[in-house]
Amino acid sequence: MEEATDPLPETGRAPGPAAASRGTFPGLITREKDPMNLELPFPTLEDRLVPNNRFYVRSHFPIPALEAASWQLSIGGAVQNPLVISYDELRALPAVTVAATLECAGNGRARLTPKAKGLLWEQGAVGNATWTGVPLAALLARAGVQAGALEVIFEGADHGTVADEPKSPGAIHFARSLPLAKARQPEVLVAYLMNGQSLPPEHGFPARLVVPGWYGMASVKWLSKLTVSAVPYAGYWQTLEYAYWQRAHGQPTLVPVTEMLVKAEIARPALYEVVPAGQPYRVFGAAWTGEDEVTGVEISADEGRTWQPAQLLDAAVPFAWRLWEFIWTPPTAPGRHTLRARATDGAGRTQPPAHDPDRRNYMINKIAAVEVVVQ
Amino acid sequence: MEEATDPLPETGRAPGPAAASRGTFPGLITREKDPMNLELPFPTLEDRLVPNNRFYVRSHFPIPALEAASWQLSIGGAVQNPLVISYDELRALPAVTVAATLECAGNGRARLTPKAKGLLWEQGAVGNATWTGVPLAALLARAGVQAGALEVIFEGADHGTVADEPKSPGAIHFARSLPLAKARQPEVLVAYLMNGQSLPPEHGFPARLVVPGWYGMASVKWLSKLTVSAVPYAGYWQTLEYAYWQRAHGQPTLVPVTEMLVKAEIARPALYEVVPAGQPYRVFGAAWTGEDEVTGVEISADEGRTWQPAQLLDAAVPFAWRLWEFIWTPPTAPGRHTLRARATDGAGRTQPPAHDPDRRNYMINKIAAVEVVVQ
Repeated sequence: MEEATDPLPETGRAPGPAAASRGTFPGLITREKDPMNLELPFPTLEDRLVPNNRFYVRSHFPIPALEAASWQLSIGGAVQNPLVISYDELRALPAVTVAATLECAGNGRARLTPKAKGLLWEQGAVGNATWTGVPLAALLARAGVQAGALEVIFEGADHGTVADEPKSPGAIHFARSLPLAKARQPEVLVAYLMNGQSLPPEHGFPARLVVPGWYGMASVKWLSKLTVSAVPYAGYWQTLEYAYWQRAHGQPTLVPVTEMLVKAEIARPALYEVVPAGQPYRVFGAAWTGEDEVTGVEISADEGRTWQPAQLLDAAVPFAWRLWEFIWTPPTAPGRHTLRARATDGAGRTQPPAHDPDRRNYMINKIAAVEVVVQ
Repeated sequence: MEEATDPLPETGRAPGPAAASRGTFPGLITREKDPMNLELPFPTLEDRLVPNNRFYVRSHFPIPALEAASWQLSIGGAVQNPLVISYDELRALPAVTVAATLECAGNGRARLTPKAKGLLWEQGAVGNATWTGVPLAALLARAGVQAGALEVIFEGADHGTVADEPKSPGAIHFARSLPLAKARQPEVLVAYLMNGQSLPPEHGFPARLVVPGWYGMASVKWLSKLTVSAVPYAGYWQTLEYAYWQRAHGQPTLVPVTEMLVKAEIARPALYEVVPAGQPYRVFGAAWTGEDEVTGVEISADEGRTWQPAQLLDAAVPFAWRLWEFIWTPPTAPGRHTLRARATDGAGRTQPPAHDPDRRNYMINKIAAVEVVVQ
């Protein structure tokens, strides 16, 4: 494994003491400069693994300036043996590598009407990478979870003040929880490598949680503190943010955003791309889902009336998106046409035609139309 | 007991089909006209029981036009025998009368700095009345609560759309839940009389929940539906509204507002009242707490440096406020002076000098200063 002292080899910049953005990402779209929020221009998608310097960046606060030598992860709360792990100790533990797609819970928000609040992500607040680290289950076993524990709360070193008065809790760290059942799944990692390289500062250096199958907010970056809890955790980012309404007995009840919904995105053609009339065109994109596998992607070129199967380009890998292609021959007459893609997963779940407002501005997987110019 | 066909005898108006405000309340301050939110001018407090047409009104939506003859209360969810109760059936069941103080969770909000969002209640979003009705425990016993049930969700007939996009669940009924342990306490009633009279429309006619010891939002008016639930209920009014931050392991966790905090309010002198120099003056007010009893009220006339006991004027009655007085002799020299009152309850709880921001704009019981003009 590579040295921890080279956290951002993609950009050739050495880690410095500054807390703000330290990498450069010429290929990404800036949605917000401070804190840093960057999106992959999805029509530029090439490979199943997105390089580290092309992977979308979602941050809630300034990127903390952490050094591997002084970083520590504390594990406490309802455990038999509270413990503190250093970076060297973490890297000395048995590690596994998992490929996993992370998607921001607000990806696609720019498509909502009326215009939604929040960062207006288009298609590209999503990426797929390999993550190497220590299974969280192993760390929890070392600490010894007490009987009656329900959840694990994960706190990042990133912190600041959330606005939104009077509802906000003021100055806080980013934090999220997982139910113990998910926390103990073998794919959930305390990761320190991303695509085989040390985590870039923007992606959580020295170590982050990676929760495959769940929206990105669960994969807490700059991980600093684990707290096993015997009571449900209703933190800011699982109530006022990253939560949605479920109906129970007719009443809406607020629940945290968790598992990713099944979704296909068309990378090419791009919106309003000019496509030659009557010539075969390779429609290309990616499809992903939550705690299951994508089993099919279909394409419609007639406003959703009929659907044709796309070709899945690679083998199913749990938690990793699949690339797909579809050879489309547009009509010979010039005109505007729309393409739609929809994915289905092994649980039979597919994409809805419209966004359910109970999901607020999260979990956006309605079938999207890409309009192209045939000429 | 009196007839249900006379819902608002205080104002001499017969119940009509209109949904909007049907009573007149010349002695109350309007904080919001639609929906109707009215406050008692606290310096006009006289008696331990506040008359129905002087009792503060808190509504979230237009007042529903309900008729006793067609009203029904359904009890369902995790019960053995789902049932529906009519008004006549409710009134035929064994009834009890409880005196209870209800205080709006936002009472005193006008005192917060910086200026808080929400209705700017001063002192008087609080009142004390007797409530007559059927213990909720008896209704739950009739329905047969299933093993594993956790909570009871109470839904009112009042409904509308909550703004606050994108976080709101849209068009909903007012609803709140109680843990089963509280729901089964003998003081919790489905009430149909207020101070011995049928509930006024503004106070929940034909029937409302009354939850003594808890802030007013728990006492759901225009009660129409009870749902026993085996999962925690995180509805709009116990998360986005009427909820506050508790710290657990350093992280703020959002919990519903429940029990009232101990509090004394000075009714007289009023703010900026002119008080004769050197003459004994009867300072007068009320004090209340949550699931306990007020055991003492103290007064300070020297910016909180020293405190003298006030005289409690009546016997402790569980859940009902106590009136108190304190004979204060102001200095002989003219000038500005402040009076402060603070209450203590049987659990040793008292009032803080400042508002804890984690309580958001709820549960405001900081010691308040009443400035008077001695001349």
